[in-house]
Amino acid sequence: MAQKPSIPKGTRDFSPSEVSKRNYIFDIVKKHFRTFGFQPIETPSFENSDTLMGKYGDEGDRLIFKILNSGDFISKVDDFTYSSKNSSSLTPKISEKALRYDLTVPFARYVVQHQNEIDFPFKRYQIQPVWRADRPQKGRFREFYQCDADVVGSDSLLQEVELVQLYDSVFTELELKGVKIKLNNRKILAGIAEVIGAGNNLINFTVALDKLDKIGEEGVKKEMLEKGISETAIEKASPLFSLNGSNTEQLDKLQYLLSSSEIGTKGVEELRFILEFIEDIGLQSANLSIDVTLARGLNYYTGAIFEVSAPEGVQMGSIGGGGRYDDLTGIFGLKNVSGVGISFGLDRIYLVLEELGLFPKAIEQSLDVLCVNFGEQEALAALRLTTQLRSAGVRADIYPSDAKMQKQMKFANSRNVPHVILLGAQELKDKTFVVKNMANGEQETYNFDAIDDFIAKL
Amino acid sequence: MAQKPSIPKGTRDFSPSEVSKRNYIFDIVKKHFRTFGFQPIETPSFENSDTLMGKYGDEGDRLIFKILNSGDFISKVDDFTYSSKNSSSLTPKISEKALRYDLTVPFARYVVQHQNEIDFPFKRYQIQPVWRADRPQKGRFREFYQCDADVVGSDSLLQEVELVQLYDSVFTELELKGVKIKLNNRKILAGIAEVIGAGNNLINFTVALDKLDKIGEEGVKKEMLEKGISETAIEKASPLFSLNGSNTEQLDKLQYLLSSSEIGTKGVEELRFILEFIEDIGLQSANLSIDVTLARGLNYYTGAIFEVSAPEGVQMGSIGGGGRYDDLTGIFGLKNVSGVGISFGLDRIYLVLEELGLFPKAIEQSLDVLCVNFGEQEALAALRLTTQLRSAGVRADIYPSDAKMQKQMKFANSRNVPHVILLGAQELKDKTFVVKNMANGEQETYNFDAIDDFIAKL
Repeated sequence: MAQKPSIPKGTRDFSPSEVSKRNYIFDIVKKHFRTFGFQPIETPSFENSDTLMGKYGDEGDRLIFKILNSGDFISKVDDFTYSSKNSSSLTPKISEKALRYDLTVPFARYVVQHQNEIDFPFKRYQIQPVWRADRPQKGRFREFYQCDADVVGSDSLLQEVELVQLYDSVFTELELKGVKIKLNNRKILAGIAEVIGAGNNLINFTVALDKLDKIGEEGVKKEMLEKGISETAIEKASPLFSLNGSNTEQLDKLQYLLSSSEIGTKGVEELRFILEFIEDIGLQSANLSIDVTLARGLNYYTGAIFEVSAPEGVQMGSIGGGGRYDDLTGIFGLKNVSGVGISFGLDRIYLVLEELGLFPKAIEQSLDVLCVNFGEQEALAALRLTTQLRSAGVRADIYPSDAKMQKQMKFANSRNVPHVILLGAQELKDKTFVVKNMANGEQETYNFDAIDDFIAKL
Repeated sequence: MAQKPSIPKGTRDFSPSEVSKRNYIFDIVKKHFRTFGFQPIETPSFENSDTLMGKYGDEGDRLIFKILNSGDFISKVDDFTYSSKNSSSLTPKISEKALRYDLTVPFARYVVQHQNEIDFPFKRYQIQPVWRADRPQKGRFREFYQCDADVVGSDSLLQEVELVQLYDSVFTELELKGVKIKLNNRKILAGIAEVIGAGNNLINFTVALDKLDKIGEEGVKKEMLEKGISETAIEKASPLFSLNGSNTEQLDKLQYLLSSSEIGTKGVEELRFILEFIEDIGLQSANLSIDVTLARGLNYYTGAIFEVSAPEGVQMGSIGGGGRYDDLTGIFGLKNVSGVGISFGLDRIYLVLEELGLFPKAIEQSLDVLCVNFGEQEALAALRLTTQLRSAGVRADIYPSDAKMQKQMKFANSRNVPHVILLGAQELKDKTFVVKNMANGEQETYNFDAIDDFIAKL
């Protein structure tokens, strides 16, 4: 007997209801991507290994899924390498392709490869799955979708302003009111490190600072000390932990604190530009606030850093993030192309909408009308009706066999169909059909040629 | 210096224009899937190897992309296997997962795994990429989308009728009028083989017959002879090559020819049911015709066999196909679940629409309005306008820097934008903006508060 089938750990099947809910999110995100002038691209699921390897650090390299070469791959391994029986040296000999790990590196590769066909500045969006050989755990999968919008070829801060607006537009239409968009700038982090005398220890400083949410002020200070940042420096950085007031007040304080740092002052100016534009135009439902402890994989970003968290009261990590990176395409030999982008965390947004009951009820309804099947001649008439309904865009179906009425109605209930059509021998003779409203049980009779009246009521 | 990046052979990047055209097709297909009562599912990109291996024949097994195990995969290979240095014996030891090869086997796996959550009959559609390590050539890729609709859990011929209607609805909305839907039935093929005395050689008989299009009548006869089918049998089959007349006339001839075969007679009855229903209801633009030489990987199908070809005059292989298979889920231990399904060949449909110029012109327009950037203050006002336009669903953008007018207009032209907004110092003072129609060069001036008038004209 066959074994009960299963899927690899960390992967998921999506049921009709789940696909519909995911598409509800995707469709809204895509709509706003498009109104903001972003264009879609798609790249292959696997890339040449040398496109991906070495771009995500050692840990990333380890988590990239490699594809085994086809055919008699082993015969191409030289005896010396083979005799070592070492996975690391063998891998590049038996695998030349790998599943994409994120959408950013393939996008950079795309921009460089197609630079002569692209009109810069290029605003692209991309919604595709990525794969990571991570240890699966709650909310962490080996296959998941990324959903990115990036602009390359422009260093204008207008892009940052628009990306804040884009977050606001999407979350407002998703009815997820009150998301918190946190904003920082790598230059401010660099400025702080410089001012407190930890400029040569910027990475350790910001990695520690980034953990404020999780380990608290004392934890951060302890880590900084362990990483060789002096007590004096940490003391000087203390005001950062208690930066408060309005965005403008915080900016003013930062400007004062960082006045001796050129890069820090530049960072404050950039933040101020974005905040003033947003204040002038206004947001629909999101809240934008400065967070100088925000770093998000700092090595990557060179300017603005964004992170979005769910509204107050919902326990969930970030549901979006992004920032500016000044040399996206340098890794593939195209220098001086500045980029800035954001991403939406689909899986977490899904969980938040589910928790708050924000998915429209209609999503669970996949069929508008079901015709009961009373036998071949009746079914032919019902199929004629069904055909007319479908032509009008109504999602209609006919039960495929003349099973017992009870069975057919059970099916209608489990499919959550709002209207059932009854067209039996008598109706066929009368050229009529009966519509049963499944919510209140009411029935209404229509003539065959009055189907438009029924459609109009739907 | 970095090497110019490339992608693996047989894979593709899709540009914004290509993605938009592909989505145009997908969106229409999905819309009709839904009105016909089909529901979407999605399955993981990779499956456990034992789910896929052995399901597509030896050739299929060879073409499945295998994923290398993570970590120190080699240390888990026993010395005996390792010392053989044999790819076939090594593969299962170093790879436990594989990329899906089609959507049918994962669907069968899904149905068995989730049988207790599914309301049968289950009409599902699935549009996802599949991967095959085939030799790439014109029109054949290593990554491509499949687009399938199947019904499982019902042996009613109404499904076949609906699937013909579904093809007709989709191709009609794609403006691809006059596609030819060919219909056959495995039972008819079995009946013919039985009647001519080649019943024990059914596979060879139909494989040869299936090639009639390509190698002609003489070629088919030659192959049959080579495969051990007797000259007498081939002679008896001759009328099949010249079967002509209307569908009804052909059916009558077949009924006569196959009257001594029980299974053949059943096949004729099934074809007649489908044809009579379709004749009664009518098709919008497709033509349905019997083709007794149609086999399509016969081992698979047990009843109806479909194939769609492009309208007369377009040289292209089949753009869709499908059929009934009586034991889809048997491979995973769930017996007696009949299925019937069809698929749409996205890549070929794309090429046909391109060749016939059937993609709507609007697809190439990704932006409705572009605001020229005249500097920071003007840009702020332009961004306010842009924000209002976007809220109204207009795809609008603002050029990110105050580059030279010529450069900005060149960008507008290459993005194919129909309307450009000019909002310079004077307009800012007057609280107006100028809309330039890029097609005819005409300009019109609006007050800031009359933006709705402009939107109404779009």
